[in-house]
Amino acid sequence: MTKLAVWPGAAPLERRYAGVRALSMALAEPLSDADASVQSMPDSSPAKWHLAHTTWFFETFVLRDQVPDYRLHDERWPFLFNSYYEAEGRRHARDRRGMVTRPTLDEVRAYRAHVDAAMAAALPDLGTAALDLVTLGCHHEEQHQELLVTDILHLFSENPLEPALYPPLRKVPVAMPGPIAWTEHGGGLVEIGHDGGGFAFDCEGPRHAALLSPHAIADRTITNGEWATFIADGGYREPRWWLADGWAWVKANGIAAPLYWEQGEAAWTRIGLDGRRAIDPAAPVTHVSFYEADAYATWAGARLPTEFEWETAAAAHDPAGGNQMDAAAAVEPRPAETGAGFFGDVWEWTGSAYRPYPGFRAADGAVGEYNGKFMSGQFVLRGGSCATPRGHARASYRNFFYPQQRWQFTGVRLAKDL
Amino acid sequence: MTKLAVWPGAAPLERRYAGVRALSMALAEPLSDADASVQSMPDSSPAKWHLAHTTWFFETFVLRDQVPDYRLHDERWPFLFNSYYEAEGRRHARDRRGMVTRPTLDEVRAYRAHVDAAMAAALPDLGTAALDLVTLGCHHEEQHQELLVTDILHLFSENPLEPALYPPLRKVPVAMPGPIAWTEHGGGLVEIGHDGGGFAFDCEGPRHAALLSPHAIADRTITNGEWATFIADGGYREPRWWLADGWAWVKANGIAAPLYWEQGEAAWTRIGLDGRRAIDPAAPVTHVSFYEADAYATWAGARLPTEFEWETAAAAHDPAGGNQMDAAAAVEPRPAETGAGFFGDVWEWTGSAYRPYPGFRAADGAVGEYNGKFMSGQFVLRGGSCATPRGHARASYRNFFYPQQRWQFTGVRLAKDL
Amino acid sequence: MTKLAVWPGAAPLERRYAGVRALSMALAEPLSDADASVQSMPDSSPAKWHLAHTTWFFETFVLRDQVPDYRLHDERWPFLFNSYYEAEGRRHARDRRGMVTRPTLDEVRAYRAHVDAAMAAALPDLGTAALDLVTLGCHHEEQHQELLVTDILHLFSENPLEPALYPPLRKVPVAMPGPIAWTEHGGGLVEIGHDGGGFAFDCEGPRHAALLSPHAIADRTITNGEWATFIADGGYREPRWWLADGWAWVKANGIAAPLYWEQGEAAWTRIGLDGRRAIDPAAPVTHVSFYEADAYATWAGARLPTEFEWETAAAAHDPAGGNQMDAAAAVEPRPAETGAGFFGDVWEWTGSAYRPYPGFRAADGAVGEYNGKFMSGQFVLRGGSCATPRGHARASYRNFFYPQQRWQFTGVRLAKDL
Amino acid sequence: MTKLAVWPGAAPLERRYAGVRALSMALAEPLSDADASVQSMPDSSPAKWHLAHTTWFFETFVLRDQVPDYRLHDERWPFLFNSYYEAEGRRHARDRRGMVTRPTLDEVRAYRAHVDAAMAAALPDLGTAALDLVTLGCHHEEQHQELLVTDILHLFSENPLEPALYPPLRKVPVAMPGPIAWTEHGGGLVEIGHDGGGFAFDCEGPRHAALLSPHAIADRTITNGEWATFIADGGYREPRWWLADGWAWVKANGIAAPLYWEQGEAAWTRIGLDGRRAIDPAAPVTHVSFYEADAYATWAGARLPTEFEWETAAAAHDPAGGNQMDAAAAVEPRPAETGAGFFGDVWEWTGSAYRPYPGFRAADGAVGEYNGKFMSGQFVLRGGSCATPRGHARASYRNFFYPQQRWQFTGVRLAKDL
Repeated sequence: MTKLAVWPGAAPLERRYAGVRALSMALAEPLSDADASVQSMPDSSPAKWHLAHTTWFFETFVLRDQVPDYRLHDERWPFLFNSYYEAEGRRHARDRRGMVTRPTLDEVRAYRAHVDAAMAAALPDLGTAALDLVTLGCHHEEQHQELLVTDILHLFSENPLEPALYPPLRKVPVAMPGPIAWTEHGGGLVEIGHDGGGFAFDCEGPRHAALLSPHAIADRTITNGEWATFIADGGYREPRWWLADGWAWVKANGIAAPLYWEQGEAAWTRIGLDGRRAIDPAAPVTHVSFYEADAYATWAGARLPTEFEWETAAAAHDPAGGNQMDAAAAVEPRPAETGAGFFGDVWEWTGSAYRPYPGFRAADGAVGEYNGKFMSGQFVLRGGSCATPRGHARASYRNFFYPQQRWQFTGVRLAKDL
Repeated sequence: MTKLAVWPGAAPLERRYAGVRALSMALAEPLSDADASVQSMPDSSPAKWHLAHTTWFFETFVLRDQVPDYRLHDERWPFLFNSYYEAEGRRHARDRRGMVTRPTLDEVRAYRAHVDAAMAAALPDLGTAALDLVTLGCHHEEQHQELLVTDILHLFSENPLEPALYPPLRKVPVAMPGPIAWTEHGGGLVEIGHDGGGFAFDCEGPRHAALLSPHAIADRTITNGEWATFIADGGYREPRWWLADGWAWVKANGIAAPLYWEQGEAAWTRIGLDGRRAIDPAAPVTHVSFYEADAYATWAGARLPTEFEWETAAAAHDPAGGNQMDAAAAVEPRPAETGAGFFGDVWEWTGSAYRPYPGFRAADGAVGEYNGKFMSGQFVLRGGSCATPRGHARASYRNFFYPQQRWQFTGVRLAKDL
Repeated sequence: MTKLAVWPGAAPLERRYAGVRALSMALAEPLSDADASVQSMPDSSPAKWHLAHTTWFFETFVLRDQVPDYRLHDERWPFLFNSYYEAEGRRHARDRRGMVTRPTLDEVRAYRAHVDAAMAAALPDLGTAALDLVTLGCHHEEQHQELLVTDILHLFSENPLEPALYPPLRKVPVAMPGPIAWTEHGGGLVEIGHDGGGFAFDCEGPRHAALLSPHAIADRTITNGEWATFIADGGYREPRWWLADGWAWVKANGIAAPLYWEQGEAAWTRIGLDGRRAIDPAAPVTHVSFYEADAYATWAGARLPTEFEWETAAAAHDPAGGNQMDAAAAVEPRPAETGAGFFGDVWEWTGSAYRPYPGFRAADGAVGEYNGKFMSGQFVLRGGSCATPRGHARASYRNFFYPQQRWQFTGVRLAKDL
Repeated sequence: MTKLAVWPGAAPLERRYAGVRALSMALAEPLSDADASVQSMPDSSPAKWHLAHTTWFFETFVLRDQVPDYRLHDERWPFLFNSYYEAEGRRHARDRRGMVTRPTLDEVRAYRAHVDAAMAAALPDLGTAALDLVTLGCHHEEQHQELLVTDILHLFSENPLEPALYPPLRKVPVAMPGPIAWTEHGGGLVEIGHDGGGFAFDCEGPRHAALLSPHAIADRTITNGEWATFIADGGYREPRWWLADGWAWVKANGIAAPLYWEQGEAAWTRIGLDGRRAIDPAAPVTHVSFYEADAYATWAGARLPTEFEWETAAAAHDPAGGNQMDAAAAVEPRPAETGAGFFGDVWEWTGSAYRPYPGFRAADGAVGEYNGKFMSGQFVLRGGSCATPRGHARASYRNFFYPQQRWQFTGVRLAKDL
């Protein structure tokens, strides 16, 4: 699964492990025991579960499997904190994770401390295969950090008091972005997928050639202000902009705006990690589904980019740049200069269904369930968001969600045929 | 609504208020913030909600309405903690109560302290109408104490670790009860309903004559051991014992035993407030639905008593006797001598639909919604349970639940025609 | 089950059998094969199924069980045409009855002819027990005749073309009824239930004493015009008139008028067996649920009568009088003189839950499933409707439906306490 | 939408129109009015609806729009027989099509005759654009012919009597096919999509280059016998073979075999248009979902072909060859010699999500809704089936269904990476 061309040694990995684990603790710091235990919908998980599940990953695949004489912290907990690894046996029903008020948040913190201590002791002696699993576990925990943030936001949005988890970020006055500029590409063969330097998830490979057709891609994502124009133009009332499944979703759920938006007296407001605030028309729109993204693109006379077009265009940009998560705070998409780059702010829906690359084979064993079995019904998103830990994203990174899901920080970049 | 023939003065009511409020706090004492915040099913509510809602009742109908210059503890909370009083305006959706992680349990405790202080200050000066509402509020809170206990039990039963909230009660060796003895009644006119002495809920009156037919009523409730025989005899597999709605419920939900029962290797076990333990064959069966109670009675060649037969037979018994709740503990039905009485252990399903007595009229205003609007689709239960605060029950007391509900401490007493 | 004090001999029964069977055929006469085969909702059945099921009843309980050497018309059909008799073995799922396009309507007609011929041959030689079953089968078929009519009406209401099955009945100009007149009753013991003369269903007995409280009962049912006033007064928008279950039903289903009503440009219209027409304000309102009936009564400052009050008041009226079904036609409630009687036009919701009378025991065997197993969750209706075959109704007759059901011809008579 | 390089003149189109319309009538010939009116699930439609909807297409887009003075056969019917064309206004809810017992089957036949007469009169004078719409309408009707057959099969499968619509086809003894032979392809650029000669649907273009990777494709589809081995090997019980969505579908629906299969005493049986019969182990498996196809491929150590691999391999085969529908009969997949071709018997699931080709734009107006709006959530199938009218399929033809759907004649061809 991991594609580590040259192993960098255990010492940097110890620092990386410590850093990742510390960020999870920081994210959970302002949470009460109840905040961390409640599950607000079947798609989300309690924060406590994220904290424990990421720990279970290290305990199971590193300590239990690789460290002689390691004793499980609690033999009953794997049943609770396995996520979806069928090969690891029975597990608690996903939509009942919010029933587990015990162990408490403090007990889960103690679990983390226990495993961290065992990992610190074990790391210097681990072999390459085990170190690969530690690396994988760090990337895995970063994914859950982003979910933890978006799941907490969803939970707080369900509280009629609309509490704020963090104080608002300081606003930096930025002018409205100008019109979209288009970067043209003449088409032809390109190389796609991870090139084998450093870590990547299995679904990012094998690296392979792909054929692009002539197209242009926008230099920035769609803003809240542009989205408000779409709404005002009847975007959610006109079936002709929508895929059939999308229109059925709009009708069945009474969708009329992005998730968390509410029409205030003067203007649209949204719920964020800092509570309810006015939307910033210059900031990238977020919390839209694939269906909404596709409808917007059709209304705008454009389309969504394919994941190959996106990856090709993004190759020139710094994957660690832009508005990504550096610390526990009220992260949100922020206004940016035109041409700010392809990473950060919002995950960008592509028009590509999430399917395997040519030659892809899932790894054997439980970690082989990591990505391959989700390759139906979902669409690829690219780029990373304001809630993605900085350093986690790559040009070849393939995120994926179902077309109706929108509780992640998801947004829209347009493309068009030439 | 209240039927207070002679008002006893404020001083005893102050002691009663303090006692009721203290028991609620004691019940919540072992709960974590998460335990108190999670809602395990739409029928149940978080413990925190019970603590706050009962407080809202006093704040709204006594302090807000009767005490000049009282300021609400928090103006946003009535929306959260109103239960079903349509006349009191919009309220939070019942099945989303578990989303409210904030206010925290400690903040709700502070709310209780605030209202208790205001109540203590106000009580000496309240008029009769307000004192009636305080009395009503005490009885109302006792009802929620029982719900708090049964809701917490349900929540803990959903946790795969099956935690215990309290240590088990000490077992007192008691012989298996002998065969049921039958008390015969020749039929004829009897007086039914509350006689006006002391408090009663509106649905217990008006007192009126009712006509009984000749019948016999059992001197005790059905035991776990007898229920195990019913199961072993195919009770849950034979449609002929069941009402049609009951049989549909059995098939749709795969019902094969009382709620919380599980077939262990050696014997049936159950989850209680003390975790999972073996069932006691001598103790009254509990957590059965009306459908199960009715099927058992049919299988046994008997029937359920009407609520009038029950009330007539119970009149000779002490409503404060038997196994009722005196303190926060692992309450559960316990084995008893034959002929132990009609109160405590389990609420007893009657064959009577919950409908108004002749001449019943709901009171005006919000408190008029207390009972009358629930008079369809539910069945009457009588007698009080091990989770009923001692002193709360009366011979005329009408509890009511839907025929499929069984997370309360509900059981079965038989009757038959003569 | 049947209560035949004196057996009248086979010859009159032969005529009765022939008459009942002929009416079913007449009702089905205007139906196409498709009309007779489609099931429009789980509560209803295809007309073809009614025609076959009533035939199956005679074939099974009379011919198969009582007539030596009788051969089933088709051995595979009992699986299709048993309704709910668990003792008779497996049967086709109720909500899939509309899948049975074969046998065709003509084949079912041939089935009826086959069984009618066998019955005609067998009747002269049947014993008393068998003759009782024939009598029961005739009453059973009359019940299905009413269901056939109301089920077809529902099916046609689901067709956007709103076809008419029959031409409209000739309108007889009748003045609007005057105000309700109230018949007072001082209360006391009355005799309730069937007295043993002639046929009755098992649930109508045992005859027993019941205690009435002083009350008054209306001399006529509520009209469409009065119902329009209820609507105009916000009847469907004010929770205070409604039972809690009723209000939840109103909100979940967007209920704002009786079934089949639609607000036309000038006035309310309704769908009937003659298609869509204006409502007649002088005619009894129909197609209202128990919840609606109860809400109307509360709004009007009255209540629904108990079934005992109704039966006592109805005893003075001719059960074969009023607007009942004499032939296949566009039956509908019609305006009447004040004090027109208690039978016909609409089934009248009572406030009584459908529960067994004192001493009731279901009969043994399959026919024992006839009534007893439905005695939970439903309410009693009395009186017969425009779709009830004349001669079928009695003062002691207990019809029953769930409180939300309203595709029968159901209406409202008020009562009040004195 | 149509891609007619050279218009062949009206005369051949008249013959084609007549032939297509006649086959629809032949398919409906053995149906009763009820057979043709009932809808057995939301995914299917009544045969009568197919007959009327295809006629509505010609009436609307040709006669109404192109023929002066044409009068609609019935102005109320477009509401009933529009399928999903939002631009054509309101329409009857898709899952209520089975409620329309009137118009009758005979009236729909009369509608067809009326439109056919008008079309015959109009055809000689139609312009090129109108003739293109006639051609489109013929292909559209062929699609509905296949749906009519599969929908009727589903309806009959829901009848407990499992009637046969046609007599069984004569069996030709054929040896079991030998092992799969693999056709290798070295990868590289290929041309994909319709080349502009003759008719094609809009989604088959634009023709464009695509890049294949080295792979091999099977020379035949998987047989019933091979599928039985998959079942016997625990194929439906092992999550490791399944996509996550597929495994959830298996568990939620209790899937254990292809649709219509039942485990008989001696062997598997299936329901077909000729009723229930033993499966033929040498015939291609059919009525499997994408999830099943993908699981089989994983179990077999292979994968599904992409639609581009399939189209490239199929280019050498005759699209009018193989087992396709020539007449109304009990069509079913049949055993064949190895290497029989790529067309007929079963639609073959590919691993390609149904998404637009580069440069695809939906046409303006109602016919533009034909394909584009369905391009999410579905997978492409290729090749045509035993129920596809011969002449309808092409190498570039893209059929599409949701991954759980399996009432079409759908099967599996394997591929693998080189």
